[in-house]
Amino acid sequence: MIRVIQVGAGPLGRQIVRYIVEREGLELVGVVDVDPSLVGRDAGEVCGLGSMGLPIAGSLEEARLKAREAAQVVVLATVSSVEKLVPQVEEAARAGLHTVSTCEELSYPWKQHPGAAGAIDRICREHEVACLGTGVNPGFLMDYLPSVFTSIAQRVDRVEVERVQDASPRRVPFQKKIGAGLTHEEFEANRQAGVLRHVGLPESVDMIAAAMGWELEEAGETLEPVLAAADLEVGYKPIARGEPAGVQQVATGMVAGREVLRLTFRAAVGEEKSYDRIRVFGVPAVDTVIEGGVNGDVATCAITVNAIRSVVRAQTGLNTMLDVPVPAWFATTKEVRVAAPAGG
Amino acid sequence: MIRVIQVGAGPLGRQIVRYIVEREGLELVGVVDVDPSLVGRDAGEVCGLGSMGLPIAGSLEEARLKAREAAQVVVLATVSSVEKLVPQVEEAARAGLHTVSTCEELSYPWKQHPGAAGAIDRICREHEVACLGTGVNPGFLMDYLPSVFTSIAQRVDRVEVERVQDASPRRVPFQKKIGAGLTHEEFEANRQAGVLRHVGLPESVDMIAAAMGWELEEAGETLEPVLAAADLEVGYKPIARGEPAGVQQVATGMVAGREVLRLTFRAAVGEEKSYDRIRVFGVPAVDTVIEGGVNGDVATCAITVNAIRSVVRAQTGLNTMLDVPVPAWFATTKEVRVAAPAGG
Repeated sequence: MIRVIQVGAGPLGRQIVRYIVEREGLELVGVVDVDPSLVGRDAGEVCGLGSMGLPIAGSLEEARLKAREAAQVVVLATVSSVEKLVPQVEEAARAGLHTVSTCEELSYPWKQHPGAAGAIDRICREHEVACLGTGVNPGFLMDYLPSVFTSIAQRVDRVEVERVQDASPRRVPFQKKIGAGLTHEEFEANRQAGVLRHVGLPESVDMIAAAMGWELEEAGETLEPVLAAADLEVGYKPIARGEPAGVQQVATGMVAGREVLRLTFRAAVGEEKSYDRIRVFGVPAVDTVIEGGVNGDVATCAITVNAIRSVVRAQTGLNTMLDVPVPAWFATTKEVRVAAPAGG
Repeated sequence: MIRVIQVGAGPLGRQIVRYIVEREGLELVGVVDVDPSLVGRDAGEVCGLGSMGLPIAGSLEEARLKAREAAQVVVLATVSSVEKLVPQVEEAARAGLHTVSTCEELSYPWKQHPGAAGAIDRICREHEVACLGTGVNPGFLMDYLPSVFTSIAQRVDRVEVERVQDASPRRVPFQKKIGAGLTHEEFEANRQAGVLRHVGLPESVDMIAAAMGWELEEAGETLEPVLAAADLEVGYKPIARGEPAGVQQVATGMVAGREVLRLTFRAAVGEEKSYDRIRVFGVPAVDTVIEGGVNGDVATCAITVNAIRSVVRAQTGLNTMLDVPVPAWFATTKEVRVAAPAGG
């Protein structure tokens, strides 16, 4: 049984709490959030689980002091910036706690944020704990999984990954977030403000390059609107032909003047279908498609919870998904007995 | 630079030798085979690489004594039986060498061969070296890769894997090996003799179950002929409708009276197409297809070579693919500069 404290009780943190609670083998012993309107409220109520008799603490220290039993792992679902994450990991490490985090920049911070990466690694080694950043993207689909597929290659010339999401059936806030229905001017303003950008694509490029042993000469990232190919009526508002229907972000990596990595993340209203595609060009070539694409919210929370087992077994210091054994889902036989035999 | 001795110079071993030699970061310092007709011959000539000035040794000891520099890793491409592999791993371990092997039963030997698994683990720990069994199947497609896909699941009810190969374009020996063109009586005789069986399917079931933490109540394995649905003229000889065109092997695992694992391996003349398919039933459900399927010979040799890096970094003792960080293909920048820009 691994005892866990969840830090961050926003939408993602609440879903992680639900996943921890229903998982055999894990025990939730604390929930932390800095939001004064949440502190003191019952974690179960806030997370939609009914009363749990576990008040949300205002700090990790408070949660530790009040925990029924000492925790081993802290899950940080707090910030996207690894610089901002450093003191949070440090506080956990000083308390002897391993850390798993959804922080996008932590997925592979060694190139984009070497200072913060080095600091986290040093702090964790000093306190003999492990830290791991994960999530579905970055952390799995566009970096770890392509790296896994290269394991059967004798030669890799190039890796391409596409994650394409049809935003039409998604929630309105998601459609707005990706810029669907904006004018060109509004889209440009949002781009400048940085609110359209999916965080983590350069980190995914860096992770694959690290797995391959490629020293990239140049790594680029672009962000453009996806323009409606026809008048669209399938989103939260009508979008005229030629207007922004979503966003496409592309990150690339070059070796010897040649593009060896291309990661494309596209989310737009009116996309023909959602899918994830990984292509390894080399010997043997591999082309694999996940039809329908992987649901990002569920998968990010799930891999974070699955990685709790991994981080307990990991080497001390800063780990990335390349360093830990396959997380995998896990359960005891007991849970399997309870699980619904859907499709079985 | 990791120095390697290849043990076993059959078709698989020769391909591994070629892959080691062309790989940046690896150095071949010895080749061993017990076949007297090979001992003393130049390894490069035997492996189709031209003269290398490296005579094939008759034993690991001889290869070690004659090596230019001390090896760190031994690759064993010798036997399918893990019982027979034990003394080979022991000899390597006593010499302080890590082992990677294509031995199918070594891929996950803890359930089917606990005695041999325990012996290998003990010997390796005693000599502070690591041992790993790998290959494309078992070792990757039907066990490790499905386990990887469950990493993004909050709940797994069931895992199904299919590997289907159209044998029509394959070499005649392969078509014969899978029973294509045999009479029903010949097929049955070959089944009894055990020559039709793909080794490793129960090990793949065991590996996934171990990743999930499932204690299987029952694990089954069947082997049946695939019967030609119509008269076939696409193989090495005509096959009449209703006659054996190949083989289908199915391994399953049960928990609480419910089938949670089903692995199907089918190879036959006249299959509509070759493909590999992994399905995780649960939340989220994942359905992924590798169109065309993965070439088994290339992939097995490649993952064995890629795993050389993994075993050097692995914990001491017996490892499976579940225990080591993602192998991944690897190269230095130098190799990338040389590689052909195919598709790039």
